[in-house]
Amino acid sequence: MRVLSGIQPTGRFHWGNYFGAIRQYIALQTAAETPGGRAFYFLADLHALTTIRGEPETLRQHTRDAALDLLALGLDPNRATLFRQSDVPEVTELFWALLTVTQMHLLDKGHSYKEKKARGLPADAGLYTYPILQAADILLYDSDTVPVGADQVQHIEITRDLAERFNHIYSADVLVPPRAYVLDDSAKVIGLDGEKMSKSYGNTIEIFESPKKLKKKCNSIVTDSLSVEDRKEPEGDNVFTLYKLFATPEQREELAAKYRAGGMGYGEAKKALIDAATAYFAPAWERRAAWEARPDDVEDVLRTGAAKARDVGGTVLDRVRVACGLAARR
Amino acid sequence: MRVLSGIQPTGRFHWGNYFGAIRQYIALQTAAETPGGRAFYFLADLHALTTIRGEPETLRQHTRDAALDLLALGLDPNRATLFRQSDVPEVTELFWALLTVTQMHLLDKGHSYKEKKARGLPADAGLYTYPILQAADILLYDSDTVPVGADQVQHIEITRDLAERFNHIYSADVLVPPRAYVLDDSAKVIGLDGEKMSKSYGNTIEIFESPKKLKKKCNSIVTDSLSVEDRKEPEGDNVFTLYKLFATPEQREELAAKYRAGGMGYGEAKKALIDAATAYFAPAWERRAAWEARPDDVEDVLRTGAAKARDVGGTVLDRVRVACGLAARR
Repeated sequence: MRVLSGIQPTGRFHWGNYFGAIRQYIALQTAAETPGGRAFYFLADLHALTTIRGEPETLRQHTRDAALDLLALGLDPNRATLFRQSDVPEVTELFWALLTVTQMHLLDKGHSYKEKKARGLPADAGLYTYPILQAADILLYDSDTVPVGADQVQHIEITRDLAERFNHIYSADVLVPPRAYVLDDSAKVIGLDGEKMSKSYGNTIEIFESPKKLKKKCNSIVTDSLSVEDRKEPEGDNVFTLYKLFATPEQREELAAKYRAGGMGYGEAKKALIDAATAYFAPAWERRAAWEARPDDVEDVLRTGAAKARDVGGTVLDRVRVACGLAARR
Repeated sequence: MRVLSGIQPTGRFHWGNYFGAIRQYIALQTAAETPGGRAFYFLADLHALTTIRGEPETLRQHTRDAALDLLALGLDPNRATLFRQSDVPEVTELFWALLTVTQMHLLDKGHSYKEKKARGLPADAGLYTYPILQAADILLYDSDTVPVGADQVQHIEITRDLAERFNHIYSADVLVPPRAYVLDDSAKVIGLDGEKMSKSYGNTIEIFESPKKLKKKCNSIVTDSLSVEDRKEPEGDNVFTLYKLFATPEQREELAAKYRAGGMGYGEAKKALIDAATAYFAPAWERRAAWEARPDDVEDVLRTGAAKARDVGGTVLDRVRVACGLAARR
C-alpha cells in the first residue's frame, strides 16, 4: 500500500479536522512498514497559494504550524515521509504534462471552482487548474491509496481518469490510477453551536488551543436552559456529544448518569469536557513543545522527507518524460 | 539587454522561418556580449507537448533537429545559451505561481485557444494555459527583450500584465515586465504558390531540403505561362521574389535584365534560384554536418546551457518563492 495525504497549511487544526481526518490518515503510516509500502504526507503550500496570496509571513507560519501539529499528533518521521509540496519541483513538471492531456470539461466541473464562481467570487486560473496539480501530487508517487473525505472522492476520480487517459494516449502503463480511501465521518464532530465544526462557521475548537481560550470556548457551547436541579438527557446535548470524543466508555456512562440524575449544571459538564480534552491531547502538547524547541530538527525532517519524495517522484517523472519524448534525467 | 527566444520543435524550419525570424533572433546573440547582457534560446519541448502527443520519437527527433538547425544557422553556444525548456524544472514551478495570480478572462482571450475552439477542435487545458507557461519562460530569466512576430505581441502583453499583477499583489518588484522586440516581417517570404510561406498551406521549402527535393520543389513554383522568348516582368514573379532573398544587388539586376530581355524561360530562373539558395546555405550545411557527426557535443551544449539557465532562473524563482512565503532554496 502506498498512501498519500496532502494537508493544506491554511490555519490551525481543530477537533473536527482531528477526528474526521488527521487521526485516521496518520493511522495509515503503518503502511510504510509493509513490504514496498510507503506513506507520504505533504504540506500543500503550493495549493495554499490559491487562497493565501500576498501574505508570505502567514503562509510561512501556517506551514511551520502544520508540520509541528502533525508531528505532535503522532506522525512519525521514521515511518512516514513528511515534506513540503513546494520542495519537490517534479510535481509542477508532472502538472504540466497532465494539463496537456486534460480535457476542459474536466476542469469546468471542478467543485471548488464552480462553487466560487457561483458565489460571484473572483476565481483565478490557480483555482481552476488545482485539481490537476492535485492529480500530479498523487500520481507522482505511484500512490494507490488516498485518504479523503466523501466530498473529495470526485478529485480522486479525476485523477484516475487522467492517469488512464495519459496511459491510453501514450499506449503504456506509465501512471498508476489511485483509489480513494474514504475516511469515516460517522464521528462527525459538532461545533460550539451544534452544527458541523467548520472554520467557515466560526464554531471551531482548535486542538492546540491555550487552556484559557479552551475554557472560554467550551463555556460558550450552546445548551438548553434547564436549571441545575433538572434531570437532563445527555444524548443530543452538545457538551455530552463532544465529551464522547475523548471519554472512555466508563467515563461516558458516569457523566450520562449525572445528566439523568439531575443536580448537575452544564457548567460542570463543560468542566468535565475541558478536563477530558486536555488529558486526551496532553501527550501531543508535550511532543509539540519538544519539536518546537528544535526548529532545526523540524527543518531536517522536512528536508529529508523532500529528498525521499524527490527520489521516488523523480523515477515516476522520468517514466513520464521518456513516454512523452523528453530527455530522461536518470 | 537580456534576450529570450523560444523555438517550437514541431518540424523542420523553412525559408519563411529563417528570414522572418531565425536570422533576426540569432543576430541578437551579440546582446550576450554587452555588460550584464545575455541571450537565451530554448527548444520549447514542453509547449510542443500540446501538439505532439503520443509520438515520443517524433518529439525527440524534432528537438534534436531544431538544436542542429539553430547551431548550423549561426547560433553560437559560446555567446548564447541554448537549452531544452524541459531541462529547467524551475519554469513549471514559476508557471504554477503565476497561475495563482492569473484572472480567467486573460486565458479566455488567448489567440490559439480561441482559434482552435472556433474551429471546433478539441482544445485542452495545456493549450488553454500555455500563455502562462510562456510568461514563465520569459519571466524566469528576467528577460527584458523578447523577439516575436507581430501576431505574438499579445502574449508579451499578457506576460507584462502578469508580472505587474504579481508585483502588485506581493508589493515588491519581484518580476521584470518584458518588452516585445517585434521582428521585421517586411521581408515576407512567399511559398511555392505565391501565398505566405507556411506549413499549414503546404507551400514551404525547407532550409535543409535535400538537393533533389529542393530542385523538385523549386520547379513546382507557380509562374505565368509566357513562353521562353517572351519578355517578362521580374517584379511580382514568384521565382524572382524568392531569388531576391539570396542574391546580391548585382545578381538581382542581372537576372532582372534577363527577364526583361526575353529569351529566358522560367526553368532557367528556377535554376538560378536553386543555385543561389544552395550557395547561401552552404556554410550552414557544413556546420550542420559537423555538429551532426558529434551528437555528444550537441548534448553537451544543451546540458551546459540548461545549467546556466537553471542558475539564472533559480535566482529569480527564489525571489518568487520568498515573496510568496515558500522556503528559499539558496
